[in-house]
Amino acid sequence: VERATSMKGVQPVLANILIESINNSTLKFTATDLDLTVVAKIDAQVKEEGKITLPAKKLSDIVSKVSEGLVEFKTDDEENKMNIKCKNAKFEILSIPAEQFPQVSEEENLETVEIDIKPFNKAVKQASFAAASYETNNILAGVVCKIENSVLEMASTDGNRLARVREKIENNVEIEQLVIPSKTLQEFSKMSSFIDEETVKISFEKSKLYLKTEKITLISRLMEGNYPKYNQLIPTESPKEAIVSVQQLISSLERVAIMVNEKTSNVKFMFTEDKLTLSADTPDSGASEDSFDIDYKGEDLLIAFNYKYVLDSLRNLETSEVKIGLNSALSATVLRPNNEEDYICLIMPLHIQN
Amino acid sequence: VERATSMKGVQPVLANILIESINNSTLKFTATDLDLTVVAKIDAQVKEEGKITLPAKKLSDIVSKVSEGLVEFKTDDEENKMNIKCKNAKFEILSIPAEQFPQVSEEENLETVEIDIKPFNKAVKQASFAAASYETNNILAGVVCKIENSVLEMASTDGNRLARVREKIENNVEIEQLVIPSKTLQEFSKMSSFIDEETVKISFEKSKLYLKTEKITLISRLMEGNYPKYNQLIPTESPKEAIVSVQQLISSLERVAIMVNEKTSNVKFMFTEDKLTLSADTPDSGASEDSFDIDYKGEDLLIAFNYKYVLDSLRNLETSEVKIGLNSALSATVLRPNNEEDYICLIMPLHIQN
Repeated sequence: VERATSMKGVQPVLANILIESINNSTLKFTATDLDLTVVAKIDAQVKEEGKITLPAKKLSDIVSKVSEGLVEFKTDDEENKMNIKCKNAKFEILSIPAEQFPQVSEEENLETVEIDIKPFNKAVKQASFAAASYETNNILAGVVCKIENSVLEMASTDGNRLARVREKIENNVEIEQLVIPSKTLQEFSKMSSFIDEETVKISFEKSKLYLKTEKITLISRLMEGNYPKYNQLIPTESPKEAIVSVQQLISSLERVAIMVNEKTSNVKFMFTEDKLTLSADTPDSGASEDSFDIDYKGEDLLIAFNYKYVLDSLRNLETSEVKIGLNSALSATVLRPNNEEDYICLIMPLHIQN
Repeated sequence: VERATSMKGVQPVLANILIESINNSTLKFTATDLDLTVVAKIDAQVKEEGKITLPAKKLSDIVSKVSEGLVEFKTDDEENKMNIKCKNAKFEILSIPAEQFPQVSEEENLETVEIDIKPFNKAVKQASFAAASYETNNILAGVVCKIENSVLEMASTDGNRLARVREKIENNVEIEQLVIPSKTLQEFSKMSSFIDEETVKISFEKSKLYLKTEKITLISRLMEGNYPKYNQLIPTESPKEAIVSVQQLISSLERVAIMVNEKTSNVKFMFTEDKLTLSADTPDSGASEDSFDIDYKGEDLLIAFNYKYVLDSLRNLETSEVKIGLNSALSATVLRPNNEEDYICLIMPLHIQN
């Protein structure tokens, strides 16, 4: 749960973890930055009921430095101090009373959709990187998530690029479009792959989302507002198509990027018959160029991209070849795994610099 | 040579590497931050003699991103541009004329002492960490180096701790006391272990040192002034002695340090019969304690150290047990590898806090 703590210090208690006994064999850990809340339960021998908050950083330092074995937590009601003991090592940490921790409401009686965690996390990885960076009121910082006809669809766009993934799922469930902060999805993905769980239960109310596995619960706000109709932005056909080795394109981009203008990240792509030539230049520093064989039969085309967007897409493809769908130097360009239709990235070109 | 470049930008040419042809099969690379100069020679096919300076960072980026194979450098005298080519990858970098690069004088007709590089680098590792951090005019930022009766001695002290190492060497050579900037020695040690060489040739004139191997030369200033008579500071006897597992002491220090006062780094060591108890505390945060078995028969002793100094020494010992020589809570404490007399670390205790 440490990842949900907030160190910004407006409320010192948000840097702490709330620890509560919920019965004589379970402890509940809660952390929140007010946008995202994470709850985890662990087995414990509870000798006496109680709750307290402790600094997350100190607690995780202790856990990483003590040797294997039982850790004993013991508190003295009057002093607001927690005594932690593991073999010969003893710690005394100042706590903040549980009453100062924000109220976390767990969901009740909400409809729940349960799906496999594997396609869910794969979709998160492939769709969430294209979202805008997080700002509370920007709906483009969210990732669209919906389930229809046994297909989970996730998509995001920051206006310059777009990623959309569709994953078949087994259950016959439906979710109308939700817009989930990308941070929530990425944190969930990290935590759930770490604890190795099978399914996730999704439930939501007006502006709140619950992602629940056997051991953890994430509670997040949902983004509100109208998300752009992104499916309309994806071209149905590309007049020109190139098949390119993903690894070769990544290496070549990294090479050429040595001389890229850091203000624009502009790399020029020159497609000619069965050949791709990349080039970049920065005034007062120099220029670079590289070329390699591809499969391309269309007309010659010169087009420029922010090379970082291209790298982001390539690194999420999970295939050895990418199919690049081109139209003109000003049209949205489509990248997708060769021989696969479920995943698509769209990148808007930059203006060619002279 | 990149490590000797200076990015501070007072003289832009110091961020560059001077590349010169010295005959038709050798190129010489030189970089300097004016305190330290590094020269390296490599094999090359020199088609036409010349010299130029190129930005070190760009050059090393290029080398790390191009594939194996010959790299071609070609320059156009008039334009101050270097063309670099490796297979299909081409780069054009703006250069600075070699004339703007500071003059580097190579040594001539100096007496040279040649010794094995292995004991030299071991001594650097074990002795240089205790030097004060680098300031041009602080002699304690230097490491003492001398050779007498086939023993190489290196030592450094920052006033709070001291490290002295003596290594037997095979050659019958002598060097009177030199004070070498610790940075020079550490850089030499890194570079020479990287290129795997056998011996180092040491020569010097009034305020200049030359460390030369087959492939590289380091030219450094020497520190001037009177270095403290450090051998007088080392106690000849310790009335109390403890034998402690290095690994256990490191783990225990790391554990207890979680609650250390970050301003003082003060950790208390309580030596009692066959037991060491470490403790730390920070006001407004908490306290920690840990203990483990050691071999100690002296009177009980409570003494405090900056735990970072203790960790630095322990990590350089290269043995599994440390012998700690104690006297009083105010006396310099001696750490040395158990059953070995060649290496010694001295740490001044801190005042015990109540």
